[in-house]
Amino acid sequence: MDKILRVNMGAAGGPTFQETPLGDYAGLAGRALTSAVVAKEVPPLCHPLGEDNKLVIAPGLLSGTTAAMSGRISVGCKSPLTGGIKEANAGGQASQVLARLGYAAIILEGKPQDNTLYRLLINKDGVKIWADNSLRLLPNYDLIDKMKQEYGEKAAFMSIGPAGEMKLAAASIACTDMEQRPTRHAGRGGVGAVMGSKGIKVIILDDSGMKMRSPKDPEKFKESTRKWVEGLQKHPVTGEGLPAYGTNVLTNILNEAGGYPTYNFKQGRFDGAAKISGEAQAELETKRGGLATHGCHRGCIIRCSGTYNDKDGHYLTKQPEYETVWAHGGNCGIDDLDTIAMLDFLDDNYGVDTIEMGATVGVAMEAGLIKFGDGQGAINLVKEVGQGTHLGRILGSGAAVTGKVFGVERVPVVKGQAMPAYDPRAVQGIGVTYATTPMGADHTAGYAVTANVLNVGGNVDPMKPEGQIELSRNLQIATAAVDSTGMCLFVAFAVLDQPETFQALIDSINAFYGLALTADDVVALGKSVLKNERDFNARAGFTAKQDRLPDYFKKEAFPPHNITFQVTDEDLDKVFNW
Amino acid sequence: MDKILRVNMGAAGGPTFQETPLGDYAGLAGRALTSAVVAKEVPPLCHPLGEDNKLVIAPGLLSGTTAAMSGRISVGCKSPLTGGIKEANAGGQASQVLARLGYAAIILEGKPQDNTLYRLLINKDGVKIWADNSLRLLPNYDLIDKMKQEYGEKAAFMSIGPAGEMKLAAASIACTDMEQRPTRHAGRGGVGAVMGSKGIKVIILDDSGMKMRSPKDPEKFKESTRKWVEGLQKHPVTGEGLPAYGTNVLTNILNEAGGYPTYNFKQGRFDGAAKISGEAQAELETKRGGLATHGCHRGCIIRCSGTYNDKDGHYLTKQPEYETVWAHGGNCGIDDLDTIAMLDFLDDNYGVDTIEMGATVGVAMEAGLIKFGDGQGAINLVKEVGQGTHLGRILGSGAAVTGKVFGVERVPVVKGQAMPAYDPRAVQGIGVTYATTPMGADHTAGYAVTANVLNVGGNVDPMKPEGQIELSRNLQIATAAVDSTGMCLFVAFAVLDQPETFQALIDSINAFYGLALTADDVVALGKSVLKNERDFNARAGFTAKQDRLPDYFKKEAFPPHNITFQVTDEDLDKVFNW
Repeated sequence: MDKILRVNMGAAGGPTFQETPLGDYAGLAGRALTSAVVAKEVPPLCHPLGEDNKLVIAPGLLSGTTAAMSGRISVGCKSPLTGGIKEANAGGQASQVLARLGYAAIILEGKPQDNTLYRLLINKDGVKIWADNSLRLLPNYDLIDKMKQEYGEKAAFMSIGPAGEMKLAAASIACTDMEQRPTRHAGRGGVGAVMGSKGIKVIILDDSGMKMRSPKDPEKFKESTRKWVEGLQKHPVTGEGLPAYGTNVLTNILNEAGGYPTYNFKQGRFDGAAKISGEAQAELETKRGGLATHGCHRGCIIRCSGTYNDKDGHYLTKQPEYETVWAHGGNCGIDDLDTIAMLDFLDDNYGVDTIEMGATVGVAMEAGLIKFGDGQGAINLVKEVGQGTHLGRILGSGAAVTGKVFGVERVPVVKGQAMPAYDPRAVQGIGVTYATTPMGADHTAGYAVTANVLNVGGNVDPMKPEGQIELSRNLQIATAAVDSTGMCLFVAFAVLDQPETFQALIDSINAFYGLALTADDVVALGKSVLKNERDFNARAGFTAKQDRLPDYFKKEAFPPHNITFQVTDEDLDKVFNW
Repeated sequence: MDKILRVNMGAAGGPTFQETPLGDYAGLAGRALTSAVVAKEVPPLCHPLGEDNKLVIAPGLLSGTTAAMSGRISVGCKSPLTGGIKEANAGGQASQVLARLGYAAIILEGKPQDNTLYRLLINKDGVKIWADNSLRLLPNYDLIDKMKQEYGEKAAFMSIGPAGEMKLAAASIACTDMEQRPTRHAGRGGVGAVMGSKGIKVIILDDSGMKMRSPKDPEKFKESTRKWVEGLQKHPVTGEGLPAYGTNVLTNILNEAGGYPTYNFKQGRFDGAAKISGEAQAELETKRGGLATHGCHRGCIIRCSGTYNDKDGHYLTKQPEYETVWAHGGNCGIDDLDTIAMLDFLDDNYGVDTIEMGATVGVAMEAGLIKFGDGQGAINLVKEVGQGTHLGRILGSGAAVTGKVFGVERVPVVKGQAMPAYDPRAVQGIGVTYATTPMGADHTAGYAVTANVLNVGGNVDPMKPEGQIELSRNLQIATAAVDSTGMCLFVAFAVLDQPETFQALIDSINAFYGLALTADDVVALGKSVLKNERDFNARAGFTAKQDRLPDYFKKEAFPPHNITFQVTDEDLDKVFNW
């Protein structure tokens, strides 16, 4: 993992590539690397779909090693959705495989001369890139079926569906999981549109013949990764809750807390919540011969994923995540798991972000295109995206554009990106994160739901402004660091509560690289990542005024607690004062 | 003109209104007043279609007097198109009539409880507002036909078409001309969408029984307005060029200069220019029994307007302006005057800005929806807007949204508003105005075409960066002042070249109001207007980074001069250093 593959899609005679050393980027990986490259190399005022934007794909520090949970891959660029910097990361196999192939990053640069689609292949023999227009507008599942036949069971794939080819701002990049299904998406911010603008349909990563990455100090590494696993297994969230019910364990919890936004963020409890909860979902999955617990990449021990079969017991989609079940379910007044699973499948197949799409359907419902609760109507709307109709293009451009086109005022976005599954009025800490993260509304950027609702990493009253700034700040810093390790963010539950588990992670990195990092160094890394990101955004024209929730969150009281967002603008502006 | 009519559309039992004194706004009119109210009363981060935005409609200082050319009415709000402050002004009868009715401004406030449409009537007996859903989705011409039958030949009307009701960001507010046709539009920035969001379909202004406004010093006023007319009549542009051919006299001039953007800003000369020039247009209009010279309001002596009849000699539309002929013509590769006139009619009828719509059709052509030059295709596209189809809603949301939805990179906008008919590479002074005016790309905000191309108000080489900052700065200041007087901006040609004509304007204001203003006071007024506007935008989150042209104007050489935009960012940031 000591080299970067730079692919110039804009070269006159067709794409060219070269391998370069890490240089200034030595020591960086994952989000730290993608954000450093974007901040340094992408002109902040460039068009996100133009020649000057770059798509940076980077495994984390520990990806490709034997360390558990190290399978996240970071994708960075200037976002077509927010206009700011973007890092979206995904699970699946890509990160481990790319890391074992020796690459710290793939950087797609330049703008293709024409509309040709390309495949990019990296294996033990090197790199190949070639035109293949036969793949045009293939949905992800069909595409990957074709790829599997050609490249066998060992290969991992990163691909875009029709949405990415159409350069829609909600387009994702799909990464295949252990069963080579295109189910793990770098979803947010339209990274798929940027891949589409570079003309790359699929990246084939095959590490056959490559070895596991080897640590500098194998003994210490073995010992620390053992403690790491131990820590994850003993924490109730990572050892029990997530394995049993997946992320959707949160539906009942958030609904109970009154922080589950329904009917396009109108109220915090949903009558149909129990019907679409993780508990109900796990039961149904098991009954139909699916899996209620399953890892998305080799080396995952939390196994929060699953498989969702249809009524006839045939695979329909991976177990929809909590945010997906919320976005397409509760947020739209839909309480039918099969409908939600179908929407999850369609999103994965067309290659769009489930959170953005669910929020967008909610806005379309608010605009009156279909009624809240109309599951078949929602399916029809998402199918329009895959078909590339005019309506589909509107919806595939995300909630903000959909709100503009249909004249809707209540559009739950920050920096143009849709809010996820936690209302910022009843969970004010996450509201601080939505408002201030450089990413646009994003729960993963500083998951304050921990101390606000889950009693993890402390306790901060979710409905009072006090303590939320510090909570979000600390989580944003920690997350930026975790996102650079290749570790799944869910390790944070154990890391926040168990100092020895945090230490085991640091020890693993130290043993692997022969370093002597301390907790302070981890904090410094997180801060430096955020600094790069904030700096890019400032140069792109963002100010404190973009670090705000839409006005109505400060004015509309949110049932059942009938509360508004209470954190002051002045306090929001202190998040990055360190 | 010493009171403000405030209409609260959000009152619980239906709209209410009250008349308030000018108070802090005393002495302000036109743009100075609309921008002061918006800057002071509208929260900069509010949603443009929400309850906190206000629509401010204000005649100018000399509107409603006998002074020639004083018929412009200013409309201000937070813009749904740019997200910043907006002042769009229009000719027609409304300004004179509203001024004679004694109102310095109408301010529409609040958000209606439901989707009801209202009429607002102001006449000598007072103010009335009442629901009338029978007007729903009526195009402007049908609406005004109905209004004329009810209110007779003296009334002036301000109205929105279907686009405004749909709250589309390109929606305009139509003002009727002397023949009570809805041909003069406050076009830019989506002011019609804001009127739509307030639920007002039409404002009926009837000054029957009211008197001309009377000056403090009638003798001096008479003398100064005489000199004023004399000055306008002797200048070659206002005395000859504009009366003979209207604004479209510019087609041949800009095309000759190589600054006429065609095929969505790809080159500066158009093969079909002669066919759609003002000369050709005037000849055709006259041949068909239309008028090649005509005033848009009583008291106009430049008479740059006209009437355009169809092949059978029936009225089709008013003489399309240069910017319209360019937007729907040259910019789209269309060289047929009848096609352009039909597009002008459709825009007026649906109530959308012709510049934004032409630029949007250009972007749609770039996206491949129809081919450049396809006149019938362009007509079909604009008809979609009137029908409110999904495609129509995209297009009616303007060029920036259309570019996003169709993944187009070359979108000629600044702050989300489409550029008018002068390429900023071949006419660099206007590029400085496009980039820096608080309005978004707008030629009228600082019409540097004067000294760059027309040899009016000095000479500044259009293709060099030198002198453009000063030129644009001075024009932006002067324009902000002129836009506050109610004077048509075309007076600027004479005012810039003839000191005695400028003095006659100042003398007229002084005589009317009993003041002793000097040229310095006029400059101070212009500066204070711009300061208010810039301040609002800063509080709305705008920075110097938004004062930029799209990247490609700095990279794509523009034929025939093969020149890029040369003014540096550093220099752009000096425009408002005074």
